[in-house]
Amino acid sequence: MPLATALSDSMHGDMLDFELIVVRITDADGATGMGYTYTVNAGGDAVARMIDPYLGDILRGEDADLIDALWQKMWWHLHYAGRGGHVTSAISAVDIALWDLKARRMGQPLWRVFGGFDPRVPVYAGGIDLQFSTEQLLAQADGFRAQGFRAIKMKVGRPDLREDVARVAAMREHLGDGFPLMVDANMRWSADQAIAAARELRAFDLLWLEEPVIPDDLRGQARVLAAGGLPIAAGENLHTLYEFRAAIDAEAVTYPEPDVSNCGGMTVFRKIAALAEAHNLPVTSHGVHDLTVHCLAAAPNRTYMEAHGFSLEPYLAETMPIVDGVVTAPDRPGHGLDLDFDRLASLRA
Amino acid sequence: MPLATALSDSMHGDMLDFELIVVRITDADGATGMGYTYTVNAGGDAVARMIDPYLGDILRGEDADLIDALWQKMWWHLHYAGRGGHVTSAISAVDIALWDLKARRMGQPLWRVFGGFDPRVPVYAGGIDLQFSTEQLLAQADGFRAQGFRAIKMKVGRPDLREDVARVAAMREHLGDGFPLMVDANMRWSADQAIAAARELRAFDLLWLEEPVIPDDLRGQARVLAAGGLPIAAGENLHTLYEFRAAIDAEAVTYPEPDVSNCGGMTVFRKIAALAEAHNLPVTSHGVHDLTVHCLAAAPNRTYMEAHGFSLEPYLAETMPIVDGVVTAPDRPGHGLDLDFDRLASLRA
Repeated sequence: MPLATALSDSMHGDMLDFELIVVRITDADGATGMGYTYTVNAGGDAVARMIDPYLGDILRGEDADLIDALWQKMWWHLHYAGRGGHVTSAISAVDIALWDLKARRMGQPLWRVFGGFDPRVPVYAGGIDLQFSTEQLLAQADGFRAQGFRAIKMKVGRPDLREDVARVAAMREHLGDGFPLMVDANMRWSADQAIAAARELRAFDLLWLEEPVIPDDLRGQARVLAAGGLPIAAGENLHTLYEFRAAIDAEAVTYPEPDVSNCGGMTVFRKIAALAEAHNLPVTSHGVHDLTVHCLAAAPNRTYMEAHGFSLEPYLAETMPIVDGVVTAPDRPGHGLDLDFDRLASLRA
Repeated sequence: MPLATALSDSMHGDMLDFELIVVRITDADGATGMGYTYTVNAGGDAVARMIDPYLGDILRGEDADLIDALWQKMWWHLHYAGRGGHVTSAISAVDIALWDLKARRMGQPLWRVFGGFDPRVPVYAGGIDLQFSTEQLLAQADGFRAQGFRAIKMKVGRPDLREDVARVAAMREHLGDGFPLMVDANMRWSADQAIAAARELRAFDLLWLEEPVIPDDLRGQARVLAAGGLPIAAGENLHTLYEFRAAIDAEAVTYPEPDVSNCGGMTVFRKIAALAEAHNLPVTSHGVHDLTVHCLAAAPNRTYMEAHGFSLEPYLAETMPIVDGVVTAPDRPGHGLDLDFDRLASLRA
């Protein structure tokens, strides 16, 4: 998925494209399900290889309805050298396709199959804008508002903290008091740098500070949360239910933020949402909102959902409008997405 | 690498083969280095794809001598959706090849480049023998002793704990008092099952109990260590320096057991050895002893090293004899392994 312009944050360098990996599953009756995952810049072909041949080999001929059993089978088949990492993205894509297949067979949308809380899910625009000038940043915000967004996240983590503070101050002034604004450091800082940054940034009434440190430094992240004075969101780089449990146990996260396309699929996303609920925490999300909306529409503790960093819209038969900051989970069967594979084929590597 | 007979443990099912992924790096002067990694049954092609094209793309033209810098570059290039899992195996193979290249250029064996402690490293035979009859188990032990081994590990985790106890009792009687014997449950048990098993098994003077629970349950593993009465070895399924730090911090492991082919290569293995030393713990290893021997020959806190679960010997120009339970790190430049690629080609998938 080529991007119209290269984007950047503090740690992933220039993002030129996203690699999209799509799974289609057909059952013996000819019913189908579709799932997808993605990578940033690199690694996508490895994910595709995990699905075909490795996961495909063990799934063919199995009962597609036993999703929890198939999930365990996939997890253990690639556990050696795996146990997270790209394996979880591969399993996620398959898991999403299995849930889509199940719900399509039922003739029900996934959010209803999952239980159903409220199909109207608040959504925010996640800007990937660290290199933008202040003018570009504010113009992007205006664009987001014109698209219907009523909450915005911006990047921080410039080499000089004063630049971050000036940019956040400009955004707060531009958006006005009370407009929900988050910032995302993409793992750039040490814990002590993050505490210093949080203490500067909390003057701007931020909803959360995202990924202040690497996801491996839960103790440091807990210090940032306790001493920095800002709630912490994190999770796009946590790839198992266990990693979310460890982050929550360490009191390192306020807003658990799984990505349904890399945390293990809908099966695991829903368990993470329940884990957060059990700890009296909200659950947010990373990316792929057209899939995530079904999980959050069934989660009583759901808060703002992130909208995609890249757009699938040119390849979708139907899209989800953002109306006054809210996306409504569709009532079409399954997740309700139908990709135009002929158009996608032109992008094939 | 096909196995002569299918092997099994409690969680990986029947092992029919190991997938071997080999990296060769050639510098601008024509000097070469070689590294390898492996998977159990599945996933190897995904590891190969991570190396070529993804890691290869960012390594070509770089200064091969700056291994720590290249390691960071590889880590961050595949960090999104990665951060461990198969990425670490891919990086490990490249890292090993870079160290081999560096030491060959110096005309020195790696264990001397690393500092040097003692080239004579005690080694144990890791039996993959859960399905063996007691007769086969004891015959295998005799074979190990005939090969020069003076320490043996056997599998536990049969459906009925009484079977494990009977098998361990038979081995202890067969080997005699004082012969170093370890057991390996391969993550089969819950923490409470493992505590019950450890309490039964500690009558047999075991050196350690390995992987009693899944590697994600550090709190449970710490309970096994505290309440079970046996030292715990673990690490073949931990893929980052951070995961070892978390296991040690949780007081969940007595014998950290990195696999140099999946923990991040020699660069990370040596940091894990230092981390263990800082916690007054020994360091053992998993698999690939022909590479690991250089790391442990340079580690003052090294204890028994595991010998390979599969044999590369038919494809090696020179092999390391096991003499009275000890392997001696070779004094050939680099790691000193030269694979016969023509012979290996016949196994190619």
